[in-house]
Amino acid sequence: MKRNIQLIIEYDGTRYCGWQSQKNGLSIEDTIRSAIEETTGRQVKLIGSGRTDARVHAYGQSANFMTESTIPAEKMAYAINDRLPEDICILKSKEVSEDFHSRYHAQKKEYEYRIVNRVMRSPLYRNRAWVVKYPKIQVDVMKEAAQYFVGEHDFTAFCAANTTVESKIRNIEGITLVQNGDDLRIQVKGNGFLYNMVRIMVGTLVDFGVKNRDPREMEEILAGKDRKRAGVTAPPQGLYLKKVYY
Amino acid sequence: MKRNIQLIIEYDGTRYCGWQSQKNGLSIEDTIRSAIEETTGRQVKLIGSGRTDARVHAYGQSANFMTESTIPAEKMAYAINDRLPEDICILKSKEVSEDFHSRYHAQKKEYEYRIVNRVMRSPLYRNRAWVVKYPKIQVDVMKEAAQYFVGEHDFTAFCAANTTVESKIRNIEGITLVQNGDDLRIQVKGNGFLYNMVRIMVGTLVDFGVKNRDPREMEEILAGKDRKRAGVTAPPQGLYLKKVYY
Repeated sequence: MKRNIQLIIEYDGTRYCGWQSQKNGLSIEDTIRSAIEETTGRQVKLIGSGRTDARVHAYGQSANFMTESTIPAEKMAYAINDRLPEDICILKSKEVSEDFHSRYHAQKKEYEYRIVNRVMRSPLYRNRAWVVKYPKIQVDVMKEAAQYFVGEHDFTAFCAANTTVESKIRNIEGITLVQNGDDLRIQVKGNGFLYNMVRIMVGTLVDFGVKNRDPREMEEILAGKDRKRAGVTAPPQGLYLKKVYY
Repeated sequence: MKRNIQLIIEYDGTRYCGWQSQKNGLSIEDTIRSAIEETTGRQVKLIGSGRTDARVHAYGQSANFMTESTIPAEKMAYAINDRLPEDICILKSKEVSEDFHSRYHAQKKEYEYRIVNRVMRSPLYRNRAWVVKYPKIQVDVMKEAAQYFVGEHDFTAFCAANTTVESKIRNIEGITLVQNGDDLRIQVKGNGFLYNMVRIMVGTLVDFGVKNRDPREMEEILAGKDRKRAGVTAPPQGLYLKKVYY
């Protein structure tokens, strides 16, 4: 009997070329699929909720696969973990309905982006955050500017220029900035994200914070639908996929 | 003219055999000393505030060295950093009085120990915290038990059994436990710490939290002066030297 198994996955993306299988480089997808195949003794197709880029991390990536294995669904996590390297861990495994599809059925996603704002580079955060080396970024300005992202908008200005998707309209449910000393976390939840969208949003917010720009300019950048008017793409190592909602 | 330069240092201890130079293995001390020698063109003696073990981290280790180099003291950090690997960074350099000695003159030290309390191992915290895999540790019990450490005590029960120092009396100024979801940070400040003292204190506190022991037993463990009655030595990767006070 075929069962559909969903996995919730944490990973440190530092060593990987990203989620998706690639000719050159080690992918998270391939690493997990190999571990599943060793566990179940059969080839499987692993469906992730979406890609994450090289060096991007996850606290709660979601993926699913069909299997005839008789290992109880909840034990599957432990069996697969025995065959995974230390920088990937299946946090949970469970049986889901046959038609469940990690990508198609994702309703919302939540990301966190971590910034450390200080003058010197950081050995302890070098693979875990973006070290923004300006004396003091204006977090209040960033908080105000971020609110223009909330709601349904055309995010053409906030995706890689060569992205070809039918619609660039996405709905951002909320965005929160939490500051604690030189540590800044940007949490964003939405119904979908274009390629590089969170990283360009963060890069643009940091530009507002560094230059103390008028937060209202964010509205113009959104309306302009021009990638060139938004900020840089924030580096990958600060980004964490926190949760996928179904 | 000889000047005495103090360095404040952050490091990720994962790759190192500890602070102190050793025949086998790469030490943080040797790595920094080599970078200083490349920078100044002369051999130097680097004096740290104290050792940290293999895999232990620092946000604010302190060290000093004498030099005839004419590089301005404040610029020294940048010059040395250019010759250091990414997992070590000099946060600050400054000239101090000729007789300043990082070890002898240390008045207090502050450590943080990080715990993640959850069932599964953690890829993102594997080199940054102790993952305590019990369903729920009783943090309230740990908080109460920790208060017995505060003040002047003989910490014989809380140091490696073969430690040979004249006095095992130390004064703990304060110990704070900060819980945030499955993240627990234990911050401890004192006038000095015996070998493995913080890690044994933490290992014992976790034993109280896991077994829901009577916090008052901590008083007896202290009074008993017997290493065997205290808990395990918590693993090194959760420990951070935060600050050395002069």
